Amino acid sequence: MSDPLRLGIAGLGTVGAGVVKIVRQKSLLLEARTGRGIAISAVSARNREKDRGVPLTDYGWEDDPVTLATRDDVDVFVELVGGSDGPAKAAVEAALKAGKDVVTANKALLAHHGQALAELAEENGCVLRFEAAVAGGIPVIKALTEGLAANDITRVMGVMNGTCNYILTRMESGGLSYAEAFAEADGLGFLEADPELDVGGIDAGHKLSLLSAIAYGTQVSFDAVELEGIGRVSIDDIRQASDMGYKIKLLGVCRMTGRGLEQSMSPCLVPASSPLGQLEGGTNMVVIEGDQVGQIVMRGAGAGEGPTASAVMGDVVDIARGTRVTTFGAPASKLVKATPAKAATPAPYYLRMNLADKPGALAKVASALGEAGVSIHRMRQYDHVDNAAPVLIVTHKTTRAALDAALDAIPATGVVQGEPVALRIEQV
Amino acid sequence: MSDPLRLGIAGLGTVGAGVVKIVRQKSLLLEARTGRGIAISAVSARNREKDRGVPLTDYGWEDDPVTLATRDDVDVFVELVGGSDGPAKAAVEAALKAGKDVVTANKALLAHHGQALAELAEENGCVLRFEAAVAGGIPVIKALTEGLAANDITRVMGVMNGTCNYILTRMESGGLSYAEAFAEADGLGFLEADPELDVGGIDAGHKLSLLSAIAYGTQVSFDAVELEGIGRVSIDDIRQASDMGYKIKLLGVCRMTGRGLEQSMSPCLVPASSPLGQLEGGTNMVVIEGDQVGQIVMRGAGAGEGPTASAVMGDVVDIARGTRVTTFGAPASKLVKATPAKAATPAPYYLRMNLADKPGALAKVASALGEAGVSIHRMRQYDHVDNAAPVLIVTHKTTRAALDAALDAIPATGVVQGEPVALRIEQV
Repeated sequence: MSDPLRLGIAGLGTVGAGVVKIVRQKSLLLEARTGRGIAISAVSARNREKDRGVPLTDYGWEDDPVTLATRDDVDVFVELVGGSDGPAKAAVEAALKAGKDVVTANKALLAHHGQALAELAEENGCVLRFEAAVAGGIPVIKALTEGLAANDITRVMGVMNGTCNYILTRMESGGLSYAEAFAEADGLGFLEADPELDVGGIDAGHKLSLLSAIAYGTQVSFDAVELEGIGRVSIDDIRQASDMGYKIKLLGVCRMTGRGLEQSMSPCLVPASSPLGQLEGGTNMVVIEGDQVGQIVMRGAGAGEGPTASAVMGDVVDIARGTRVTTFGAPASKLVKATPAKAATPAPYYLRMNLADKPGALAKVASALGEAGVSIHRMRQYDHVDNAAPVLIVTHKTTRAALDAALDAIPATGVVQGEPVALRIEQV
Repeated sequence: MSDPLRLGIAGLGTVGAGVVKIVRQKSLLLEARTGRGIAISAVSARNREKDRGVPLTDYGWEDDPVTLATRDDVDVFVELVGGSDGPAKAAVEAALKAGKDVVTANKALLAHHGQALAELAEENGCVLRFEAAVAGGIPVIKALTEGLAANDITRVMGVMNGTCNYILTRMESGGLSYAEAFAEADGLGFLEADPELDVGGIDAGHKLSLLSAIAYGTQVSFDAVELEGIGRVSIDDIRQASDMGYKIKLLGVCRMTGRGLEQSMSPCLVPASSPLGQLEGGTNMVVIEGDQVGQIVMRGAGAGEGPTASAVMGDVVDIARGTRVTTFGAPASKLVKATPAKAATPAPYYLRMNLADKPGALAKVASALGEAGVSIHRMRQYDHVDNAAPVLIVTHKTTRAALDAALDAIPATGVVQGEPVALRIEQV
């Protein structure tokens, strides 16, 4: 029996407390599965006095996570502080420099500083693992980095923000407006302190950028993710999509093309009968497509104490067993800077706009599309209400560039009120 | 850069040829991801002359897989011969005794000899990996052994025989009888040489027994899997189930109960709206439930060259990276013999039987059930055809033992023709 693996845990919110509980309650199970004990040396959080539902008196206490990260009695620094900079970053850097392995659930940190941290880990012979940062309890980082490592990855897709999926699902099931569903999610405590992290697609975009890096051996480039939130999706869009056999999801998609790496996190239409289309409520789903394996779908809870702590401890178990895999599945020094490619892959698009009650209005829109090279697959115009008529268009496959050219030309027609909604139809 | 990892591949059928192709075509990718080259030293198969669509002249050849397994220039023996005994077993044993790591896709071998082989691997300091043996390309062994290792597993379920799922799906979609759908699957080459391996649930039962061992830290006990094939499922059962909102799947279920380890592979009703219920055609699905993570669903191709070779190579990549995990996720010497418990967990059951056209017939059946302690939730009797009327019953939750007592008592009523069909309704 080896010496126990000693953890220093920084951040004692829901997930941190969950990790402490697992270490306390499952010591025999963990020892049976790893061949060594797993112990907690010390912890750190902002408020020492707060009751977290789990006894902490057995462990050392550090007010400063950086001090915790470099303690001699810490083998693995578990970072659950959160935030892309500040104490989380300082502590992770300090841990790696001190030769400690790091396990983190911090998607923002890795989305912004993943490359530098992976290099730092490599220089110091440390592992930096982050299963809990993407899709909660679903072991998707492991599947992509390890299980599917013999594949050229052709596409990764994911519904990875449970709050957005909850809002979209409730809009459909309850006939709620976006504002109503947003308020409901807020009342249930589902939203981040800054809700834009959720509904703006930022949180999910962070996660996508990490999957891209692993899938394509590229340096994490969150800034290159095309982000679009769900705030402009209306109940009408959801109903129209449903009529056509689709669901609207905040969908992350990444793929390597001849023109570069596409990464987008945006509301998309997906077939209602597909696993992604059938995903309801706060559950997450990641779809990985490889040239050998075909399509692998993974589904599970994307947040919450148990699922996230399960993922953190999965990484800890790996380290206890001596598993040492590079941060993004290849040496950090070999990860290449990807050329970002704005949605280059042609796809059909769903468009909704409000047409003024003027003669020839529809023709003007149709010709603006045609002149940009966007051809129309289906079009429906509805009755005028308050001098405006909703028009729905499904295009044939087109590039985003052609579509944007058409959208840019539409204001000049003078017949469209407000800004059109344009959602990609992702073929899955 | 370390020395290349040298493979010896025994068995050059579809999967073996697929593995050779990946090693040849993806050498740069594999080297980038593992930090070392992966090479093939030698191969073995029954017929050296056969064209397998991939050049083999670069590699040594052995007629005898045992000789291949012990070659000095082989680090990892890849066993794709198949069969629970004979050359596959001899070669895996020889490889482990010679200190070689082993990767295999052989579910029958591990279902029958998994414990002995895991002990042999441990004694010789070798790893024995088998991702490809369960659910093809889905990295479920890795998820269960590693990613979810901090969970007490509460249940594992799986649809793990694509041929059976194809037959059941085609019965429903095409209105085919079992015999017709079976013939169709046979014509498409989906069936094993001995079809009972598929439709009798044996192949899927092998896979379930491996998942059980990992989930519960028990010695593989395939003999304790309650096996029931799909041969008695009729189109009527499928239609009736559908009317009630269920689908019929050949479902493997294992769970640890106070009375022991339940393992069953049998046709079950699952809710049509659940991921398992929505699974159509030859696709596989495994559902893992843990006390921390909740429910994780994994879906993908369960067979075929690419998916199975992807899984084999995932194990090879692990070994190339230096990952060394015990065969069943805990030291072989610590795996305990489980007490087998016959479907002890109470569940509702679906029953179908043919009732003779005699007065009081239905009452006799109802009272036979009642006397055994089985209470009826729903019952339907249909019109008599040829002096017999189909009767469908859904029971309240009951134990299998009580149900069997009722079924044993039914012949004595003298009003039921043939043997009743009894299918568990698994709540998912």
